[in-house]
Amino acid sequence: MHTNKNCIQRMSRYRNALNRFKGLGFSKIFSNYLADAVGSTSSQVRKDFSLFGIYGSKRGGYSIDCLIEQLNEILGKNELQKVVLAGFGNMGAALVRYKGFSKEGISILAAFDIDPAKYNKRINNIEVLPLDRLQPFVQEHQIKIGILGVPEIAAQHVLDLMVAAGIRGVLNFAPIQLKCPAGCVVNSVTLEHELENVIYFVNANEKTEGVAA
Amino acid sequence: MHTNKNCIQRMSRYRNALNRFKGLGFSKIFSNYLADAVGSTSSQVRKDFSLFGIYGSKRGGYSIDCLIEQLNEILGKNELQKVVLAGFGNMGAALVRYKGFSKEGISILAAFDIDPAKYNKRINNIEVLPLDRLQPFVQEHQIKIGILGVPEIAAQHVLDLMVAAGIRGVLNFAPIQLKCPAGCVVNSVTLEHELENVIYFVNANEKTEGVAA
Repeated sequence: MHTNKNCIQRMSRYRNALNRFKGLGFSKIFSNYLADAVGSTSSQVRKDFSLFGIYGSKRGGYSIDCLIEQLNEILGKNELQKVVLAGFGNMGAALVRYKGFSKEGISILAAFDIDPAKYNKRINNIEVLPLDRLQPFVQEHQIKIGILGVPEIAAQHVLDLMVAAGIRGVLNFAPIQLKCPAGCVVNSVTLEHELENVIYFVNANEKTEGVAA
Repeated sequence: MHTNKNCIQRMSRYRNALNRFKGLGFSKIFSNYLADAVGSTSSQVRKDFSLFGIYGSKRGGYSIDCLIEQLNEILGKNELQKVVLAGFGNMGAALVRYKGFSKEGISILAAFDIDPAKYNKRINNIEVLPLDRLQPFVQEHQIKIGILGVPEIAAQHVLDLMVAAGIRGVLNFAPIQLKCPAGCVVNSVTLEHELENVIYFVNANEKTEGVAA
């Protein structure tokens, strides 16, 4: 099966859109409606689903309930996803308050930091613990997923600690390329790069318009 | 020129890595070093640069200073990038505190919200203003870039307000597909989907290991 990051991201978006359609009272959906709702094409939708052995019928489309159930299975939504957060700076503090995770069945069980001034803080029932408690905590709770919200300079070191503790996948916010062993995955989101992207395309559009005018 | 989002994101990463190499005292660099530093391949690096008419020499590689200068030009780094933020919830409040933007020459000039309890707050010298001040503010300061940190249900409405005010590119954090007119660009970052991605690949790896074992 050839799945990549973009394909899985579309799966998350399909699931989101399907829940909205369901909320509106729909029970069946055609690929072109779903494509419109996520900004894709109907052939892309069908291709993505076929990778997972999901096929609709030409006359009736896809059953929304079935599709949500299958996407839940694919995206690991059928069980609570336990996560630890390393780094309780501005980004970390925002992430423990972020409602999007719990809506999606993702639960940050604890946050870890090296600054004692942050311990004993408790936000949304999430405790901030010393970084050296990370390993026993991860092992005790059998956690596989981590969020890395530490500064660039500490990111590789803390990632190594996480992997040694048993973490197998990390969402990283530090603007740096991290190395992890085979069998582990790091997905990096760099907000300044995302914004630079927007800036580039706005400037590129302006130049094109300038030429066209 | 065929540039896409991934290519521009790599440009941001190259620039980041080049600044680190420069800090270490290097003045020249070969594509394979740069590739290693960003987790890419040397042929990808050369292909990306050639899209912008940037070529190194076989013997000496690329001049780091020249390359940074050219990437600064491409990514709009030669002038301060003025940005407005709509939505001063948890995410918005974290974004105004986020140091990554100012490091990259991106300045959030003001934040806008509909909740009067948030007005008169000032964080990092950024003021929170009523949403109906967005349009005159954007026009007065000739701002083209916005960040959308409002809830899903308000996102399309606030995006429309931004576009009407003159915003041409938006970084969106709401987990919903937004529609914008031609000539405008929306880049959506959905944190829960990014984490779902990690979860999917961790589960997929575990299944593969299970099969292999």
